[in-house]
Amino acid sequence: MTYCAGILVDQGIVLASDSRTNAGVDNVSTFCKMRRFELPGDRWIGAVCSGHLGITQEVFAAIDEAHAGASPAWASAPDMRAVAAMFGSALERVRESQAKLAAFGVDTSANFIVGGQIGQEPPRLFMVYSQGNFIEAQDGTVFFQIGEAKYGKPMLDRVVGRSMPLEEAAKCALVSFDATLRSNLSVGPPIDLALYRAWSLDAAKTWRFAEGDAYFEGLRASWGQGLRSAFAGLAPPPM
Amino acid sequence: MTYCAGILVDQGIVLASDSRTNAGVDNVSTFCKMRRFELPGDRWIGAVCSGHLGITQEVFAAIDEAHAGASPAWASAPDMRAVAAMFGSALERVRESQAKLAAFGVDTSANFIVGGQIGQEPPRLFMVYSQGNFIEAQDGTVFFQIGEAKYGKPMLDRVVGRSMPLEEAAKCALVSFDATLRSNLSVGPPIDLALYRAWSLDAAKTWRFAEGDAYFEGLRASWGQGLRSAFAGLAPPPM
Repeated sequence: MTYCAGILVDQGIVLASDSRTNAGVDNVSTFCKMRRFELPGDRWIGAVCSGHLGITQEVFAAIDEAHAGASPAWASAPDMRAVAAMFGSALERVRESQAKLAAFGVDTSANFIVGGQIGQEPPRLFMVYSQGNFIEAQDGTVFFQIGEAKYGKPMLDRVVGRSMPLEEAAKCALVSFDATLRSNLSVGPPIDLALYRAWSLDAAKTWRFAEGDAYFEGLRASWGQGLRSAFAGLAPPPM
Repeated sequence: MTYCAGILVDQGIVLASDSRTNAGVDNVSTFCKMRRFELPGDRWIGAVCSGHLGITQEVFAAIDEAHAGASPAWASAPDMRAVAAMFGSALERVRESQAKLAAFGVDTSANFIVGGQIGQEPPRLFMVYSQGNFIEAQDGTVFFQIGEAKYGKPMLDRVVGRSMPLEEAAKCALVSFDATLRSNLSVGPPIDLALYRAWSLDAAKTWRFAEGDAYFEGLRASWGQGLRSAFAGLAPPPM
């Protein structure tokens, strides 16, 4: 399984992904599910993925492919919508090329959250579906989740808003990972986190929180403590 | 959709259920998904259900059926395991009798959480699956959820334990409803709550929290406030 989240706020974009992949519970590996495509001064693009690893790696490779010495297509896409469309059509193409897998009962579905900023266009965030179509985050819905989304959704639903500071949005993404890690064994560390600051057009700030990372464990512990004390303060049902 | 939870603690049993049923998003109704079978001084049995309403109502009717003036079978079951088995076989029978529905693409699956106490046996809690088989709560896992279980699971995972006071377990069930109500529109009030106190062999204490209920709204508000202040206290990612 997988859990990834992307959040779009006025101050920028947060992307976060876990690193566990599994083919059954007895075949577990660690793969980074986040890729960044950076051209400082001109554009920043980041993407996280869920679904069939062979498919998603192939899509990332297709996006990053450079033909005959030319720069790859992501480097010249006119806007983020074009980048989302590029992921969508690459995904469609790769899945078609792997259609034979269906005969073996392999599920080739995959999803991407793709965000970034190109030139003078404000930062944008997209979710790309298995069929290659996509949607864009708007004021009412500023985050997307893929993979094991439900455990982490209530906290995002509750606190995330467009005007939230970038670091708060990052904290919220990590809190949503805490809930997911607790309730689904097939989502696991390291957790990759990227913070892109709007209008910087510079590389994102990134972290990789490995198992036992002091900051992430501290955050989980103080979140747990905060929850327990909030819970202790609730009135019991009226008798 | 539906959300129901059952918690077994040393002090007794908590059952909680929502009341929304829907056939598509444009056909929403309110039905109580909780039934109690009470024989003060001898036994208390409570059950909540998810799945096809026509099936679950039929199962409850079968459990409560009295033949030729005799008392219904639940009133003479020797122990709670026999009651769980009774639900399982009634469910299997009812689903078989409605097998024709499959031809119309109707999903007849259904689940029950069944708890209670009979005579001198300690309280027990079971989950009955669509196929009629069932499992029992044990020290390691003292709660069951059916229906839209994921949003409400992290909080139960985090705080529920066998030695938790009964009223705390009830609060925790309601907090798990808060998360579920927020994130899934097809789970809706009124929320039915029953608290059975171990060894009382008396009727459960029950509440029905309708939309806008002062206690439940207060609990949701102070929980939200507690979460936000716990969140505000978390350290941002190390820069």
